[in-house]
Amino acid sequence: MAGRQAVKAYLDLLSQPCRAVLIFLKHNKIPHTLELVALRKGQHKTPEFSKLNPMQKVPVLDDNGFVLTESDAILKYLATTYNVPDHWYPKLPEKRARVDEYTAWHHVNTRMHAATVFLQEVIFPNMGQPTNPAKFKKALTDLDGTLDMLENMFLKRKPFLCGDDISLADLLAVCELMQNSFDCLFQPMCSGRDVLKDRPKLLSWRSRVQSALSDSFDEAHSVVYQIRQKFTAKL
Amino acid sequence: MAGRQAVKAYLDLLSQPCRAVLIFLKHNKIPHTLELVALRKGQHKTPEFSKLNPMQKVPVLDDNGFVLTESDAILKYLATTYNVPDHWYPKLPEKRARVDEYTAWHHVNTRMHAATVFLQEVIFPNMGQPTNPAKFKKALTDLDGTLDMLENMFLKRKPFLCGDDISLADLLAVCELMQNSFDCLFQPMCSGRDVLKDRPKLLSWRSRVQSALSDSFDEAHSVVYQIRQKFTAKL
Repeated sequence: MAGRQAVKAYLDLLSQPCRAVLIFLKHNKIPHTLELVALRKGQHKTPEFSKLNPMQKVPVLDDNGFVLTESDAILKYLATTYNVPDHWYPKLPEKRARVDEYTAWHHVNTRMHAATVFLQEVIFPNMGQPTNPAKFKKALTDLDGTLDMLENMFLKRKPFLCGDDISLADLLAVCELMQNSFDCLFQPMCSGRDVLKDRPKLLSWRSRVQSALSDSFDEAHSVVYQIRQKFTAKL
Repeated sequence: MAGRQAVKAYLDLLSQPCRAVLIFLKHNKIPHTLELVALRKGQHKTPEFSKLNPMQKVPVLDDNGFVLTESDAILKYLATTYNVPDHWYPKLPEKRARVDEYTAWHHVNTRMHAATVFLQEVIFPNMGQPTNPAKFKKALTDLDGTLDMLENMFLKRKPFLCGDDISLADLLAVCELMQNSFDCLFQPMCSGRDVLKDRPKLLSWRSRVQSALSDSFDEAHSVVYQIRQKFTAKL
């Protein structure tokens, strides 16, 4: 590690997967510098950023010249190359496979459905585009199916998604599901939606995850809390 | 490994991720028994199969009682627990991260767009549902964007998606893209579509992957070849 510089994390803190990366860096005290990329200002489309990541997406990690995209891969790489507790991404093949199983499933389930609800309910109306009622209804039904699976499959008989302790899976999932709890915070005419509110099993899981993450969770969400305050003040 | 029995692989060979698992098992000579689950006959919805996988999806691996879903996780688990050549899923963190980066991207890109084109063009019409022209056009545009990224990002200056040798990434990708080459084989009124036909870079990549996989590729695709023969005979 001699001569190794702090990793650079290119993030927009309004993005769920970016917050997962920041929480992981902070919680595990991995030396890093934060490079903010504001998606709403199109900073991911500049020639400079496009050279770093031709996908024009965040998060991006630059570890001493090794440039990596995709939050899932970034978290696994950080867990492997930095001295973090084993529970985040266990070395035992059966335990590791459980984390890989969830993260593979996450992309087209928790991530996709939670993000679609958020886009339809919050982002589109704030951009002057009306919500598509049929698409919104389908997105809510899809998200409901995902939450059922989280409760009945992943959290069946265990406190965290992949076992007895917190892992990368819980971190990726909680950041997506927090976004939907924040839906009402982004718009003055809020629906007050918290997608977990009638789901005691997921609510107590979320509490356990937040406790395990302690201060790093609130630090990464501070920008979201500020937006909430701004909206609340307007009401 | 004493007393360890052959793994059981629950697969439908008309499914792309299932064929990737079978090719990996055969190519690496991992002792396995094949349990066929015909999706078209609803065999993934029986109480017995639902008990094994509440998601009611294939592939499923049963390694001496350890039951795992998601092709991505299954391949990584097999690569880790069986003595397969390192290039499939390299141990070096930077190289492994490249495979994790592709597989994370794969789910909502190669897999999603190739499968949507196939559903719209082949499966729906064969089920008596008309193709939705707007959705089909969007799916083709999305797939085109994915193929651009495969060429310009992943295959830029290297022969395989994640480096100098074949990895799990190539295997997952080729099975999806072969499906679209087969589109025309499934329907008598075929479009003759091969999504790679004007893309020499991807075509030569596909040849390299097929050569690297040798006979296991054709063995896993035999059921698809049989369907082709049946349709050709009808014409």
